[in-house]
Amino acid sequence: MAITVLKRLFVGSPLATAQAKHERLGKIAALAIFCSDALSSVAYGPEEIRIFLALAGTAALAMTVPIALAITMLIAVVSTSYWQTIHAYPAGGGAYTVAKENLGTLPGLVAGASLLVGYVLTVAVSVAAGVAAITSAFPVLYPLRVGIGMLCVTFLCVVNLRGIRETARVFAVPTYWFVLGIGVVIGGGLIHLWRGGPVPEMPAVQSATLVPLTTFLVLRAFSAGCTALTGIEAVANCVQAFRPPETRNAGITLIWMAAMLGSMFMGLAFLSDAFNILPREGETLVSQLAAQILGRGPVYLAVQASTMIILLLAANTCYAGFPMLSSLLAKDGYLPRQFASLGDRLVYSNGILILSGLSMGLLIAFQGDTHALLPLYALGVFLSFTLSQLGMVRRWARLRESHWMHHAAVNLLGAFVTAIVLGVVGVTRFVEGAWMVVVVIPALVVMFYTIRRHYVEMSRQIDVYGYRPPKIGRHPVVVLVGGMNRGVIAALTYARAISPNVTALTVDLDSTSTARLQMHWPEWAPDVPLVVLDSPYRSVIQPILQYVDKMEKQRDGDYMTIILPEFVPAKWWQHLLHNQTALLIKAALLFRRGKIAISIPYHLGS
Amino acid sequence: MAITVLKRLFVGSPLATAQAKHERLGKIAALAIFCSDALSSVAYGPEEIRIFLALAGTAALAMTVPIALAITMLIAVVSTSYWQTIHAYPAGGGAYTVAKENLGTLPGLVAGASLLVGYVLTVAVSVAAGVAAITSAFPVLYPLRVGIGMLCVTFLCVVNLRGIRETARVFAVPTYWFVLGIGVVIGGGLIHLWRGGPVPEMPAVQSATLVPLTTFLVLRAFSAGCTALTGIEAVANCVQAFRPPETRNAGITLIWMAAMLGSMFMGLAFLSDAFNILPREGETLVSQLAAQILGRGPVYLAVQASTMIILLLAANTCYAGFPMLSSLLAKDGYLPRQFASLGDRLVYSNGILILSGLSMGLLIAFQGDTHALLPLYALGVFLSFTLSQLGMVRRWARLRESHWMHHAAVNLLGAFVTAIVLGVVGVTRFVEGAWMVVVVIPALVVMFYTIRRHYVEMSRQIDVYGYRPPKIGRHPVVVLVGGMNRGVIAALTYARAISPNVTALTVDLDSTSTARLQMHWPEWAPDVPLVVLDSPYRSVIQPILQYVDKMEKQRDGDYMTIILPEFVPAKWWQHLLHNQTALLIKAALLFRRGKIAISIPYHLGS
Repeated sequence: MAITVLKRLFVGSPLATAQAKHERLGKIAALAIFCSDALSSVAYGPEEIRIFLALAGTAALAMTVPIALAITMLIAVVSTSYWQTIHAYPAGGGAYTVAKENLGTLPGLVAGASLLVGYVLTVAVSVAAGVAAITSAFPVLYPLRVGIGMLCVTFLCVVNLRGIRETARVFAVPTYWFVLGIGVVIGGGLIHLWRGGPVPEMPAVQSATLVPLTTFLVLRAFSAGCTALTGIEAVANCVQAFRPPETRNAGITLIWMAAMLGSMFMGLAFLSDAFNILPREGETLVSQLAAQILGRGPVYLAVQASTMIILLLAANTCYAGFPMLSSLLAKDGYLPRQFASLGDRLVYSNGILILSGLSMGLLIAFQGDTHALLPLYALGVFLSFTLSQLGMVRRWARLRESHWMHHAAVNLLGAFVTAIVLGVVGVTRFVEGAWMVVVVIPALVVMFYTIRRHYVEMSRQIDVYGYRPPKIGRHPVVVLVGGMNRGVIAALTYARAISPNVTALTVDLDSTSTARLQMHWPEWAPDVPLVVLDSPYRSVIQPILQYVDKMEKQRDGDYMTIILPEFVPAKWWQHLLHNQTALLIKAALLFRRGKIAISIPYHLGS
Repeated sequence: MAITVLKRLFVGSPLATAQAKHERLGKIAALAIFCSDALSSVAYGPEEIRIFLALAGTAALAMTVPIALAITMLIAVVSTSYWQTIHAYPAGGGAYTVAKENLGTLPGLVAGASLLVGYVLTVAVSVAAGVAAITSAFPVLYPLRVGIGMLCVTFLCVVNLRGIRETARVFAVPTYWFVLGIGVVIGGGLIHLWRGGPVPEMPAVQSATLVPLTTFLVLRAFSAGCTALTGIEAVANCVQAFRPPETRNAGITLIWMAAMLGSMFMGLAFLSDAFNILPREGETLVSQLAAQILGRGPVYLAVQASTMIILLLAANTCYAGFPMLSSLLAKDGYLPRQFASLGDRLVYSNGILILSGLSMGLLIAFQGDTHALLPLYALGVFLSFTLSQLGMVRRWARLRESHWMHHAAVNLLGAFVTAIVLGVVGVTRFVEGAWMVVVVIPALVVMFYTIRRHYVEMSRQIDVYGYRPPKIGRHPVVVLVGGMNRGVIAALTYARAISPNVTALTVDLDSTSTARLQMHWPEWAPDVPLVVLDSPYRSVIQPILQYVDKMEKQRDGDYMTIILPEFVPAKWWQHLLHNQTALLIKAALLFRRGKIAISIPYHLGS
């Protein structure tokens, strides 16, 4: 069929289960896939700090570098904590697994919900920021940003439905290109300053009403900058995607990543301060800085392009994380089973589709504006950090391996620091949008429990032990007759074959044709009694359901079969020319116990 | 169920077939229902004439009154023709019936297609013009016009699903209120002029480039004004909706209508010229004229409100005409059968829904702009006029009743005049949008023929004579098994009851659980062989279909039954927690001959 051809074209041929092992990643490719989320945060992190400081006027911008230093230290602490997690959980230590195993089900589910929310937001934020990098270079595209964002998500969705290794191959180069590009910007800027080159004047702050530089505002700027930490946990979640020795490779990749992230973040924050760059609508801070240092030539364009691409890679990280986490949750019964199974390209297709749909919804709702999306972002991420680190502390205390006190201390520091940041983010960004996350995470947790209760209750109800099989008895079969035709004759033949107790049923919609049917009936089916039902309101369905319910009390055995003769046209559009009454009758019967509806198809030629 | 409650609340309780006769209309009510379309055309007809004349500058506006006179004469000719149609076709002489009976099937279908297109356009145009009457009075609502239009169509849809007589009762007063309001405007304007009151200066024509006043431009203005004739045929289509004596009542109503329409049209055209009113964006000509004569007080607002309401009534006319015509076409096999049957409120519900959907689509596509929609409008209407009049001429010549030459001459004049207008409209408005109608009408005719061919071919194929009933033989039954549970046991019990030849089938997705199933199978169903199918690509459906197709060659008899155990959850949302694989398997089996799919439901408690 056409849909199959389309699927094969975009998604590729099916892959056999046995091919799964070959889909592992080396360190170079893994860095491109799993670290792009964290690394790309530098595209918006420093900008967010300066946006909030600028509210208090140009003097307040001097706080940029101290805040950036604090965030860089935070990066170091959190990375060290996750390095320990990788070694303790070689099978993949996502916050969900760690929190559930060590703290219990509820904290695990809270961590899982935070992570799911975080993944969706990462896709939306990264795509919005990537599009912003392009519209900074080509302002004419600015009004089209939501549409371009949709295209990007669609592209990611298709690439990921194809499977992870091919994705890595497509995307490995641009991550290093981005790191190189930011390196050139930072290097060029530092040389410029060292040589004593001129820097632009500080532009006047446009804001009509300046707010005072309170501690609260500094904390808000710090919270906003903390979005740079998002994605730092990706490596720990996906240890099993690395080539053996998985633990060692993942650990080394994490350290590389933390070093790159810290240097780029510090460098950009310092230079944006030294060059007096102020954020403005329609052009990102990185774009302004790059244009200042490199001029608006081909090198500048290359930096913007690489920024766009790494942000797409960041979004792509979530296409590994979200489906894998939702499959874990589904296997534990907290999400619908459809999320648990691999699609025919060895990826969790349903997770990929849901992630794409949700992030597209966010992009539309927030009109593709990075700055509007970011307040929702950090809260969920830091909640999962804290729970994961606390889980690790409990783990060390429980297992008491050698040096456990030392390990526990590292994770305790991580938990302590991220908990403080969590509190700061929650308080300072609540009104701006973090409240939505505060609503969504408990709602997700309730949903998880509800789903699991259904599965548990169901598996109890369908257990074969102690089940008395239904009795069939003199099984009554009713054939619905709309008029006399070949479809009805086929249905009557089938009915006689499966039971000796057959009745025909017709609804009187038009007295002339009903009379004709009754007159000729003995010629066609003398052995089957024909029952005629009245229908004062011209409904076909109601009289049939009333008859079936009435018979309920009289029948022998547990089942009653209702046979519907159905014409199957040769072409799909011809279905529109036939009444869909059979479908409605079947839907109504589905909710009545002991009723079996059978369509006997009669195939029409074209 | 909830949907039933909602339906009853908005649509009302079902009405019995026997209640149909009481739904007839008196002349007063019929005028309100069937003539509002024609009468309301004066809200945009005169305006359209002046829009086109203004393109050639203020001097050209002197042509307004001559053009309006020509259109008024056209109204007289067409009404006389239709008066004859009413008397010749007391059962309802729509263009479709008249053309089909007298000119043949193809002209009949062309007329039918033109009428359907005309009805959809009338709803869109009238609602757009009605909303314009309101936004003229309250310009603040102008940006919301598309949304208000949607609300109006939804309202009409609901009112009409309730049934026609209640509609008449709701709507009878405002038609007369509109006629009275326009009468006050015209009367007030004439008295003002007679007393020699001052008139406003002619505003300067804003257009940057004036076009010369060519014959073509005059014809364009004339074509644009001819939209005033739309709806004139409504009475003739619905003679049977009148109280007896139907013919006489309908004829009298038609004459009243023509007189009112002509006077209002002439009056508005003359006064807009005398008061130097020029159309402008955001305010209609009638609104400007009324404001000029009455001031912007309560009387002005009453006129605007009545204009809005009569235009809604005009749209409502189509809610009688479109469903009735589509039911005629459906009874003749040219449209899907679903259009032929009365809903439970004695109305053709499917026609009402389709009409609402299509006109909403037009309103959105043309952004609720009357002026943009009008070029599509007159062509289909005049095509059906011409075909209908030609059909009448043929009828008189065929039957040769007394005075037939006299009658034929009247209709010939009508045919001649409307054919000329048709040509003028087709040529002058082709580029503006009439080309769409030129594309759509033949496409509809092709669709009519295709649908009828399907029904004719089908009734030949399902004829019981000469049909050899299928053989059942040792009917093979296959039970699909996903694991061992109560649902499977119920399905096996049913399978054993309907055939001695039962096989169980399972797809190996997970080798551990498959092995466990095979081990325990003899305890549960020792009499049924269990077949295990491999699935290298983790698809459930493909291996099953391959097995079924392979068995095709081996089976005895014409049928093979596939039984699918299915869990029916207690709550609707729980369906989302179960794989919809059963549905996909059933859909795939539907297109394979001789395959009967049966779901055996196992009902879960909540």
